[in-house]
Amino acid sequence: MKKFYAKKDGDFFIFEGEEFNHFNVLRCDVGEEVLCLGTDGNDYLCRVKEVFKKYAVAEIISFEKNTKNPKTNITVFQGMVKGEKIDLIVQKLTELGVSNLYTFESDYTIAKGNNNKLERLNRISQEACKQCGRSKPLSIYDGISFNDMLKMLPEYDVVLFANEKNTNRELVNIAKDKKIALIIGSEGGFSDEEVNKLLSVGVKCFGLGNRILRAETACIAMASIVGYMVGV
Amino acid sequence: MKKFYAKKDGDFFIFEGEEFNHFNVLRCDVGEEVLCLGTDGNDYLCRVKEVFKKYAVAEIISFEKNTKNPKTNITVFQGMVKGEKIDLIVQKLTELGVSNLYTFESDYTIAKGNNNKLERLNRISQEACKQCGRSKPLSIYDGISFNDMLKMLPEYDVVLFANEKNTNRELVNIAKDKKIALIIGSEGGFSDEEVNKLLSVGVKCFGLGNRILRAETACIAMASIVGYMVGV
Repeated sequence: MKKFYAKKDGDFFIFEGEEFNHFNVLRCDVGEEVLCLGTDGNDYLCRVKEVFKKYAVAEIISFEKNTKNPKTNITVFQGMVKGEKIDLIVQKLTELGVSNLYTFESDYTIAKGNNNKLERLNRISQEACKQCGRSKPLSIYDGISFNDMLKMLPEYDVVLFANEKNTNRELVNIAKDKKIALIIGSEGGFSDEEVNKLLSVGVKCFGLGNRILRAETACIAMASIVGYMVGV
Repeated sequence: MKKFYAKKDGDFFIFEGEEFNHFNVLRCDVGEEVLCLGTDGNDYLCRVKEVFKKYAVAEIISFEKNTKNPKTNITVFQGMVKGEKIDLIVQKLTELGVSNLYTFESDYTIAKGNNNKLERLNRISQEACKQCGRSKPLSIYDGISFNDMLKMLPEYDVVLFANEKNTNRELVNIAKDKKIALIIGSEGGFSDEEVNKLLSVGVKCFGLGNRILRAETACIAMASIVGYMVGV
């Protein structure tokens, strides 16, 4: 069934802007049943009621709880990466069941924050949701500072840090009901001062082996491993 | 240090073809020290001796065993995927320490085998090796049949199958010294007949959760998880 992120309004969903373009591209028409993914965690079965020039309206027939949204809260803090690597990261973290993504600047980041990218990244996550079946996209926050990240870490029960100088592979056991944060550096990695700051607030090192992984590989690998362990 | 896949000839390495182009792009010159990655598992420190019009020669100064090659033999059987997804798979599997990649045709594969891609895929793996530090590239075999794959499976101690109908996440414990095979379907997945054939030869289902992962995401995630478990 065709899936959409339309705007809920009472018993109806309204298709506007990009989502209305998508509606037209998919040749949706009056009478057709479509699935509207609700930001409330429900999937709404709807029937298209009217198609206007700039928007369309569908009426809710029934709804059910989406069962593919993440069951554990995993937040990824990713050092800002260059070019289109962030697109790949957003798509894959959505599929892998991560809930939140913060990108951060650190001493060795080369890429700079681009808030104008945010709309595109949100679209990428929405498209990935449609494909993998979850309804709540990744919540994306672009370009916080390293120190802002440090201040947020006490909110989490478990903080795992992909420290490239630590090849330790001691299997970590993580309870399902914990709030988990994963920290992955940018291409340039972390300065010694930053590593010390992270260790001083009690983050756990997470070794990804002795090969040097690209930033986006480390991010996707870590989300895969931790997601598998906790059954996200 | 600049890294190359040159051809070993006695006490020398010869840079030809693509690798000679690469040599020129990096502006290597006589007297410079470079690292030649040997297919024998050694890294060779060399000094450039002469640069000719179509090739260059470097003399071996010393060598040491490469420590970043995979320590466990993991083979991935990947249903053939469309477009450039295979490039991403080859790059990431190289970084993640997979030893061999077979792509196979099955009932629902849409992509067709392209042996003319093989040279390009080998280059992608070589470049990934230079970046992650391993010296032995992924061994790539493109486009075997589903039945050929079935015949090969008894060679492996453990065969894990990413069965999308199985969301079981029972953590699998795998000994380090085993020969491991991972099977991931193409975009279209497997037919019921194929699933039954796989189960009848004793493969273990490996659940990647209840979201529907893209073929390349399933492949990268599974290699990450299994690689982490066995410390590849």
